[in-house]
Amino acid sequence: MQALLDGEGAEIRGRVRQLLSTPAFSYQSFASTQAYREQVYAWCKILADEGLGALAFPKNCGGEGDLHAYLATMETLGFHDLSLLIKFGVQFGLFGGCIQNLGTAYHHEKYLPAVGDLTLPGGFAMTELGHGSNVRKIETVARYDQETQEFIIHTPSESARKEYIGNAANHGRMATVFAQLEVGGQSYGINVFMVPIRDEQGEPMPGVTIRDCGEKLGLNGVDNGRLWFDQVRIPRAEMLNRFAEVSPEGEYVTSIENESRRFFTMLGTLVGGRIGIGASALSAAKSGLTIAVRYGAQRRQFGPEGQPETVILDYQTHQRRLMPLLAKAYGLDFAFKYLGRRYVDRTEEDAREIEALAAGLKAYSTWNTTHTLQTCREACGGQGYLAVNRFAALKADTDIFTTFEGDNTVLMQLVAKGCLSEFKQQFHDVNLIGLIRHVALQAATAVTQLNPIVTRITDADHLRDPHFHLDAFQYREQRLISSAARRLKSRIDQGMASHDALIECQQHLVNLGHAFVERVVLEQFLADVEACDDAELKTVLERLAALFALSHIEQHKGWYLEQNYMEGGKSKAIRRQVDQLCADVRDDAVALVNAFGIPDQCISAPIASIES
Amino acid sequence: MQALLDGEGAEIRGRVRQLLSTPAFSYQSFASTQAYREQVYAWCKILADEGLGALAFPKNCGGEGDLHAYLATMETLGFHDLSLLIKFGVQFGLFGGCIQNLGTAYHHEKYLPAVGDLTLPGGFAMTELGHGSNVRKIETVARYDQETQEFIIHTPSESARKEYIGNAANHGRMATVFAQLEVGGQSYGINVFMVPIRDEQGEPMPGVTIRDCGEKLGLNGVDNGRLWFDQVRIPRAEMLNRFAEVSPEGEYVTSIENESRRFFTMLGTLVGGRIGIGASALSAAKSGLTIAVRYGAQRRQFGPEGQPETVILDYQTHQRRLMPLLAKAYGLDFAFKYLGRRYVDRTEEDAREIEALAAGLKAYSTWNTTHTLQTCREACGGQGYLAVNRFAALKADTDIFTTFEGDNTVLMQLVAKGCLSEFKQQFHDVNLIGLIRHVALQAATAVTQLNPIVTRITDADHLRDPHFHLDAFQYREQRLISSAARRLKSRIDQGMASHDALIECQQHLVNLGHAFVERVVLEQFLADVEACDDAELKTVLERLAALFALSHIEQHKGWYLEQNYMEGGKSKAIRRQVDQLCADVRDDAVALVNAFGIPDQCISAPIASIES
Repeated sequence: MQALLDGEGAEIRGRVRQLLSTPAFSYQSFASTQAYREQVYAWCKILADEGLGALAFPKNCGGEGDLHAYLATMETLGFHDLSLLIKFGVQFGLFGGCIQNLGTAYHHEKYLPAVGDLTLPGGFAMTELGHGSNVRKIETVARYDQETQEFIIHTPSESARKEYIGNAANHGRMATVFAQLEVGGQSYGINVFMVPIRDEQGEPMPGVTIRDCGEKLGLNGVDNGRLWFDQVRIPRAEMLNRFAEVSPEGEYVTSIENESRRFFTMLGTLVGGRIGIGASALSAAKSGLTIAVRYGAQRRQFGPEGQPETVILDYQTHQRRLMPLLAKAYGLDFAFKYLGRRYVDRTEEDAREIEALAAGLKAYSTWNTTHTLQTCREACGGQGYLAVNRFAALKADTDIFTTFEGDNTVLMQLVAKGCLSEFKQQFHDVNLIGLIRHVALQAATAVTQLNPIVTRITDADHLRDPHFHLDAFQYREQRLISSAARRLKSRIDQGMASHDALIECQQHLVNLGHAFVERVVLEQFLADVEACDDAELKTVLERLAALFALSHIEQHKGWYLEQNYMEGGKSKAIRRQVDQLCADVRDDAVALVNAFGIPDQCISAPIASIES
Repeated sequence: MQALLDGEGAEIRGRVRQLLSTPAFSYQSFASTQAYREQVYAWCKILADEGLGALAFPKNCGGEGDLHAYLATMETLGFHDLSLLIKFGVQFGLFGGCIQNLGTAYHHEKYLPAVGDLTLPGGFAMTELGHGSNVRKIETVARYDQETQEFIIHTPSESARKEYIGNAANHGRMATVFAQLEVGGQSYGINVFMVPIRDEQGEPMPGVTIRDCGEKLGLNGVDNGRLWFDQVRIPRAEMLNRFAEVSPEGEYVTSIENESRRFFTMLGTLVGGRIGIGASALSAAKSGLTIAVRYGAQRRQFGPEGQPETVILDYQTHQRRLMPLLAKAYGLDFAFKYLGRRYVDRTEEDAREIEALAAGLKAYSTWNTTHTLQTCREACGGQGYLAVNRFAALKADTDIFTTFEGDNTVLMQLVAKGCLSEFKQQFHDVNLIGLIRHVALQAATAVTQLNPIVTRITDADHLRDPHFHLDAFQYREQRLISSAARRLKSRIDQGMASHDALIECQQHLVNLGHAFVERVVLEQFLADVEACDDAELKTVLERLAALFALSHIEQHKGWYLEQNYMEGGKSKAIRRQVDQLCADVRDDAVALVNAFGIPDQCISAPIASIES
């Protein structure tokens, strides 16, 4: 089973696992936040020295040009202390990735080798205090001074301070700064600049003010900081100019004329980050499941009179809490591997769809991690509350995942807009009116006919049939698309502004985002089950996929019943199937979590030890 | 509004709020866990010196005999650092409450004055490593030695060590130790003993081993410890003998012959604790709502082209996340006040029902707190992740509430068994067969007839009618009772052991527990709305109650549709009503959180400042 999960990346995953099992990576408790940050930095340095940071960089810049391997590394690091994961992701994925994606040969050669071996630590300075989700409104200015051929980076107000910048509080020497470009009094929207923030001695550069963000709920091994720029000058060449540049004479030259399209192209750096975060969040969920399942399979409490107490994993409520989450972890694993392949092979044509997939899976996976870790902690009772059993760190460190690298609620709306526009154009555009009319018109002509007999079938063969599952997931997605289009169209036809119409249908759009992601996860789950050629393994996977599918249909049964997609008797039969599948999967549960292949040293929780 | 929430306890609540607003109670950061614990102890001492710890103790023992005031104090302390709440609750509610409830005049006079002024810090030593929920299986032994007229307290195995005992690691001098009594080779079940654990110098007593539980996910200001006893001798008089005692000659004398009834009577101490925990958990949820609502009413992000950005609380998704939780906080507030009155006035007759209510509301409220704080943290984005904005502490400290003082999943099953037995007998008893037959029989003759017209009504007057809401909640509870009885009976009739039958219906029972609690909350909500004689306030409360009711009917719509309690068109109309009610309540949201009356110094989060 582990071979299946490791897939083509088995070699790199094995290397990272081995590293994480060395004494250098054992967990410690720290006397201070500063000591913790220095340890995380030291861990990062080991990984950099092993060439893992530069994996995705071009070969001529010290890298391997292997994005696949980089993503597999991130995912595996998700088994360890998550401050390390985030510090690693900031340095190599965001800071380095930004230079790689938005810079040209000059920047690549000048910076990437030093980024990759961590001799140049840096930050990704996009977010501002007043501008989190709505990046387009950032206020930091980069004004071109033609006389000196420099850009002047400036923070014009308190809401414009760069906020929450990883690597800024202690270690960063430079930052890729997102700023509104001004040339000759005219504004050219957001562009990105290489700005030194500390000198060789670690002192802030002239004009740069740096403050620590202070204690956080988790991830305290990452040095998040705030940045203010007071008329800081940088040479013209330090603008990352892959898509746009300013000529010495002050002419703005760009290969993407449409400002909106240019803006979202530049945000593309976030797509890889979202895949990394989503997949690593899944790794943290797997850690939680490993601990809770192993503990649940040993812990006994209550039982029949005069007999040994019952193992708590044999209780229906315990199975109901953990088994669907175990199934979902497998489904998400397959979905992230699919997304990774699509992302590495992406073209201009499918970029929109892949962005939507990355946004949706990031949101779906991180919410699932929060829920999974909470459930697992509770399933371990008071033992789960002791720091030594790991939930303290796992829960705290992942808590921000649902709102950073794109707030999940905002991301799900992007996904929905993508669905409504069939990923054919920029789904970030607010003006969707034309598309909505198109989709609403299509919907009116293509109403799915429900077979009244099928809505009543309750036999196990049908209920466990993957075709039924996929049909249900697809039906939900399609209905939510067409009804969203209809609801939006009727408001716009009545003269409502599109912003207001979208707000009135906002929850509907979030639901659509979920339905889209769930359909993709199920499709990939079923594809991987289908491809499995080990009969015994296949049976286990089929049960997991059925549990994933049916527990979600059960979760949405209110919606399915409203739509008359099924009758009450069928939804009750589904509940019984879920009960049964939970009991079936329980038998393989320990083997299934062991197959995640999490190094013992990463788990470390005494209650998860196999011997205990 | 605040006057309504404060109710009859306004005076004591005002006193505690004022204390918590003094400089002595301002939050600090601590250099070490030990420093934190000492501060919490010092805070406790101030409260004890003010007479707040002894409020519930008899007047002749330094108290006021005012359980109401004690509960109101606990609830108000829930606005402050929660380590203080728990340390306070352990000392005065569990340790002191145990002596008060299970001891007699000798123990009251000897101990309660010193417990109340904190000159005798102590712990409540019930839980053992191997025995959390299933207290009845604890292994610690108290063997009576007739020769010396002493009890010998002993820990016979590692799974018998006392675990997670608050006040044990640092400050406790004594503990009320739950142990299996043995007299003359015969076992008499669980009884409770006053055992010194430290001497005046703070050194462990001979035969007592104490270890620190170590770092926890939260509540690190509480010194939880582990205890082992090696043949520790205490005088015969130190057994808490209200319900049972051992005569000098070794005769076991008890006023409650049935061992099971005696056991659950002794566990009665936990009932008050559960009320305190549930109500204080609600206070923590109120803190989170106050921060998130105030921030949401100021923070702007995105908006229509060329206009100021929209306040995020005006977004439907934001309202949908926060407004139902605000309504629920009000409903729970009224329910806890009702439960407090019932508890204070309890009699032998209604003790079972009140125990079930306390168990159910504790579970319901603490799960709600976990969910509310998570939602509020996410609604504040990255700002919510900064420790200074309080969610770090609120989330971590309350996380254990769902599994301590009774694991919620276990408690909800107790509640369901109570419903099935109509609270007429000990609902802890496993053997429910007779009762189940009775309920199943009743159910068969009393099937509620649904009016087919009502299942289709979608007009606002009907959907907002409290009679409809209450009917829906009552219907759900009654149907879940009768169907649980039927399901259990059919299994038992087929010869299944009752333990196995209960496991197969376990999730059903948990759902029933929820339905029972929700019905009670709605009833109290409506009663308090009805009693309100300020017309303007009443309108606001009516909307809150309707939002509470309809958002729960919406949440369970799958179940209602399965039962044909309503048709799809009606459930869709309910969704629209919930949208509208969220928008309506949003207008009063800031006033509604301000009415919680949480002292500014307790909130302390910069993003919740009203000026910012």
